[in-house]
Amino acid sequence: MDIAKESLKLHYDAKGKIELSPRVPADSREALSLAYTPGVATPCLEIQKDPDKSFELTRRWNLVAVVTDGSAVLGLGDIGPEAGMPVMEGKCVLFKAFADVDAFPLCIKSKDVDEIVRTVQLISGSFGGVNLEDIAAPRCFEIEQKLKEVCDIPIFHDDQHGTAVVVGAAMLNALRLVHKDIKSIRVAVSGAGAAGTAITKLLLALGVKDVVMSDIGGIIYRGRPDMGSAREEMAQRTNPRNIKGTLADAMVGADVFIGVSAPNIVTQQMVESMNRDAIVLAMANPTPEIMPELALAGGAKIVGTGRSDFPNQINNVLAFPGIFRGALDVRASDINEAMKMAAAKAIAGVLTDDELAPHNIMPEAFDPRVAPAVAKAVAEAARESGVARI
Amino acid sequence: MDIAKESLKLHYDAKGKIELSPRVPADSREALSLAYTPGVATPCLEIQKDPDKSFELTRRWNLVAVVTDGSAVLGLGDIGPEAGMPVMEGKCVLFKAFADVDAFPLCIKSKDVDEIVRTVQLISGSFGGVNLEDIAAPRCFEIEQKLKEVCDIPIFHDDQHGTAVVVGAAMLNALRLVHKDIKSIRVAVSGAGAAGTAITKLLLALGVKDVVMSDIGGIIYRGRPDMGSAREEMAQRTNPRNIKGTLADAMVGADVFIGVSAPNIVTQQMVESMNRDAIVLAMANPTPEIMPELALAGGAKIVGTGRSDFPNQINNVLAFPGIFRGALDVRASDINEAMKMAAAKAIAGVLTDDELAPHNIMPEAFDPRVAPAVAKAVAEAARESGVARI
Repeated sequence: MDIAKESLKLHYDAKGKIELSPRVPADSREALSLAYTPGVATPCLEIQKDPDKSFELTRRWNLVAVVTDGSAVLGLGDIGPEAGMPVMEGKCVLFKAFADVDAFPLCIKSKDVDEIVRTVQLISGSFGGVNLEDIAAPRCFEIEQKLKEVCDIPIFHDDQHGTAVVVGAAMLNALRLVHKDIKSIRVAVSGAGAAGTAITKLLLALGVKDVVMSDIGGIIYRGRPDMGSAREEMAQRTNPRNIKGTLADAMVGADVFIGVSAPNIVTQQMVESMNRDAIVLAMANPTPEIMPELALAGGAKIVGTGRSDFPNQINNVLAFPGIFRGALDVRASDINEAMKMAAAKAIAGVLTDDELAPHNIMPEAFDPRVAPAVAKAVAEAARESGVARI
Repeated sequence: MDIAKESLKLHYDAKGKIELSPRVPADSREALSLAYTPGVATPCLEIQKDPDKSFELTRRWNLVAVVTDGSAVLGLGDIGPEAGMPVMEGKCVLFKAFADVDAFPLCIKSKDVDEIVRTVQLISGSFGGVNLEDIAAPRCFEIEQKLKEVCDIPIFHDDQHGTAVVVGAAMLNALRLVHKDIKSIRVAVSGAGAAGTAITKLLLALGVKDVVMSDIGGIIYRGRPDMGSAREEMAQRTNPRNIKGTLADAMVGADVFIGVSAPNIVTQQMVESMNRDAIVLAMANPTPEIMPELALAGGAKIVGTGRSDFPNQINNVLAFPGIFRGALDVRASDINEAMKMAAAKAIAGVLTDDELAPHNIMPEAFDPRVAPAVAKAVAEAARESGVARI
């Protein structure tokens, strides 16, 4: 199948991948008088008295805005807001199909952080949550941070946190297989952009003590010149041995390699330098940091990628539908680190010990156990961490 | 039936009056690879090359944003953005039910004109049109005007123009019945807010030569002190005899009274002072400027109101679904005066001479002929006036 050609045909034929559907009748005068004027004045006045009633009397409780500026769409880069919309619509299809979340795509015609923040803030009263998508780093960090400060609904940048959750889940299950304690492992993370930073923060939250990040300039260490503030912060929180050098140096003796960087930058020799029972999660898409057969030849015990044509696909669709389902179900004001950790553990926990194997560390995308398990765990974590409002 | 109570129950039970539905399958790896990654890159790149392709490869071609700031919701006044949402959702239900338009409700948490304009402008790439709703005058004029300047999709304030279209249609059919020429009639319009101004402008476009507007300060005339710029403009374009005085003075000898103002401000005596075969369209809601029985007692030949419990309901639902259907069908860049005139004539024209009667000047809300006729006429007018893009 020529996927590019078939997909284009699907898009032309479908004339849009989502549509709006009424949930109430509008086929009689009586129906209109209840769903619209004059009856609708009553729910309006209820919400005026208590704006939180908008979560009960409108669809807000189940609505997520999928927001992009089109600046980092897939691996295509800055293709513009309108051009990002097919991805956003696709994301909305997945939200509904996997977790019955109503998601609506919005592209914003601006690259200015404050303008994007203000726009989302001003429309946030229409939604129960916001999923930021395909916004370039470092703008995405600032937009997310500022939105979290001004909005009282969850703000979630899936390219950061969805990726972090599924990588975290993959690593947890890989560690189950090789019987290593998360507190004593060494992890080398290649890539210090949106995903690499979020992954590293989640690993630290999950209990990893020794993470070394690297970017195109080599290992991130305290005192390295010319790092931005985001990398400075990570230098303070990672690399406890404060080693310097290249990615190759970071991988020597590492138990886990996590790549969210560039194709083919890891050699077989670099994998050979890792600790026994090495775990290689090479997420660069479509071509991973090292192809699975090469990593296995280098002695890796477990290899995962972002691709569906290799074993152990590490796919965000395992995370974001259930995470928002759980957050919406308890009307969470935030999706915090505790909820992301709970999601990672829930995804990993779906696989029983019998199912778990080196070629099967992640549930299938269509495993019906995943979204409900994630939603339940995330809702509980929201309650325990004090961000649930019902 | 207790409509207030039943409507509240309906809103609690429905848990939102709209939802999102996928139009493509998401139930297999192959389906995902076409609707989402990796296939979706192809439509994205097509849109990058030509942003207008967003009207073919996403739902944009059929999507209308229903936008409010919650400042003039129904007759309830400024109840806040979230509290306006039940009305916006209801409007979206009507858009879909009457004309298969996908409409999505958005409330904006600001009362600042420029901020509202900028917000809508920045998200306009996601939509094929914008329906402004329940925004207070005079802010609504400025917002609409500025949005028309910066957006290349239709901007339509239904409270102004939808109302103008249906009132225009009612007047056209009433004139058919009383055999008066639109060019020689006198019209008294009570109310110089959003609706009154839009109605007057449409009447002028339809050929009425003598319209006299009045507001709480009396008749609007050239030289009246302390009028805002909007009323100054109307003073220049109306009241050719430049009469002064009260609404009662404006109604003396008038052929048509149109009220979009306040309850019970017109007396039987005022109707008696009108020309023979007087037409009274008293739209104040829920209590009209004069009750129909009183107007008829005063000699009115034809009486219409906004209410469904009297004959001749003048209801915006006859206009906005078909207007947007027509505009979207030809990818119009604007909804201009020619398109509104075409809509008014199309609504009026639905009723055959046999159907037309003093108690039946408007099609029923559920008359299936209306929306297609309006859509066709609006699309043609868009083509003829040069704003159609396909």
